[in-house]
Amino acid sequence: MIKVVLIGSGNLASHLSRALILAPNIDFVQRLSRNNSNSPYFDPSVPVIRELSELTDADIYILAVNDDSIENLSKQLKHLQGLVVHTSGSVAMRILDPQLRRGVLYPAQSFSLEKKIDFKKVPLVLETENEHDYKLLSDLASELSDRIYKLDSAGREKLHVAAVFANNFSNYMFYCAEELCIEAGISFDILKPMIMETGMKVQELSPGKSQTGPAIRNDLQTINRHLEQLKGDKKVIYENITDAIIKSFKMKEKNGKKL
Amino acid sequence: MIKVVLIGSGNLASHLSRALILAPNIDFVQRLSRNNSNSPYFDPSVPVIRELSELTDADIYILAVNDDSIENLSKQLKHLQGLVVHTSGSVAMRILDPQLRRGVLYPAQSFSLEKKIDFKKVPLVLETENEHDYKLLSDLASELSDRIYKLDSAGREKLHVAAVFANNFSNYMFYCAEELCIEAGISFDILKPMIMETGMKVQELSPGKSQTGPAIRNDLQTINRHLEQLKGDKKVIYENITDAIIKSFKMKEKNGKKL
Repeated sequence: MIKVVLIGSGNLASHLSRALILAPNIDFVQRLSRNNSNSPYFDPSVPVIRELSELTDADIYILAVNDDSIENLSKQLKHLQGLVVHTSGSVAMRILDPQLRRGVLYPAQSFSLEKKIDFKKVPLVLETENEHDYKLLSDLASELSDRIYKLDSAGREKLHVAAVFANNFSNYMFYCAEELCIEAGISFDILKPMIMETGMKVQELSPGKSQTGPAIRNDLQTINRHLEQLKGDKKVIYENITDAIIKSFKMKEKNGKKL
Repeated sequence: MIKVVLIGSGNLASHLSRALILAPNIDFVQRLSRNNSNSPYFDPSVPVIRELSELTDADIYILAVNDDSIENLSKQLKHLQGLVVHTSGSVAMRILDPQLRRGVLYPAQSFSLEKKIDFKKVPLVLETENEHDYKLLSDLASELSDRIYKLDSAGREKLHVAAVFANNFSNYMFYCAEELCIEAGISFDILKPMIMETGMKVQELSPGKSQTGPAIRNDLQTINRHLEQLKGDKKVIYENITDAIIKSFKMKEKNGKKL
């Protein structure tokens, strides 16, 4: 049994808590929550403490707190013997106090309080300072999920940049689409099944293979007609992405012919 | 019973064909296919013809052909008495020969041959020249799908611009993410569940409400660290979209405060 303490009371903490309870070989001994927030989303069977001084011995302490709180919190945990891991995608492991046995357990998923999720399918990205701790952390992670990845802080930073494109920027494309619909008095609902399909297609097919639209066809007539209808930032974005698509896939074609 | 002839043998034609066969009040009398392509994807119960001269009388002729072929094909159909509709999102209705009773039946979904789809959930965007024909076309459409929308050619063009953002551009964001992963030796699989979640979230929540990431937090430290890792088109895209996100949501905040 791996003894685990969870620190946090937000979205991620609530989902981690549920996954920890379900895991047969984990002894989820305590949760630290400074306030009572979101308590309905946590199983009452796990003892909740309010103060750091009440922390008990554990093999692993999971910090499911805001990025900005990690460094300070870790300084108050210096006395702990167990492995202390943060759960952030964009924060380096070294931000944890150097007197600690340090690690990262980053669940690469976006969570919302209300929506239950199959944690077994959440990719967990792991990092530790040494092999011995990695063994412990991956034993824990394997109890929670079937998808385990090892990345150092530099790799996780690169993954984070990619995630900004894959999620934040794609969501902004949906936002632009919604705005264009609203301006034109068209229901955004029309586009929702297409958006769902785009997300589903990527699960099986490389996005390079499923790229469609006027840009990849180099259909300048349509592109120009579209640009006439756009202004401001949307026009700039349309121009830049169209330009990038044309270049990306032209280059591919060229390379293909050369090979 | 509405008598329908389908012209085409591509992705969309195969899905339309299946939906037409399933609809109880539609008499799917013929399919015109110039060649034998994709024949395994079509039910053999519907008579296939090869020549325009073999076309029979019908209430509606659906042209499920390439955008570029619509105009020419319609010129060869001048003798038809029925309603002739094309299925393109980006082509105006008036491209059909003016001697015809003209209309548009645009399924706002991306189709692939192999993947079956619940056609009842595909948004169908309709246009005709008069109310009488609209009644006929919407009767047909209601047999195929539960989601019917009326838009004229100008509205459909605007929808098409929005769809370029929602699908083509979001897919390109996934493509950039995949490239960044490949460059860094990271498995793109890590990001797939997040991408799925992004698409699913939009089904219920406005993308303006689910926008996350360094840009909306105006987290310049992270943004600059990310920009250092990017070059070329990806850097330009990162800068432009980040800039647009910051402006969009700042303006919203402002407006929110003013109201």
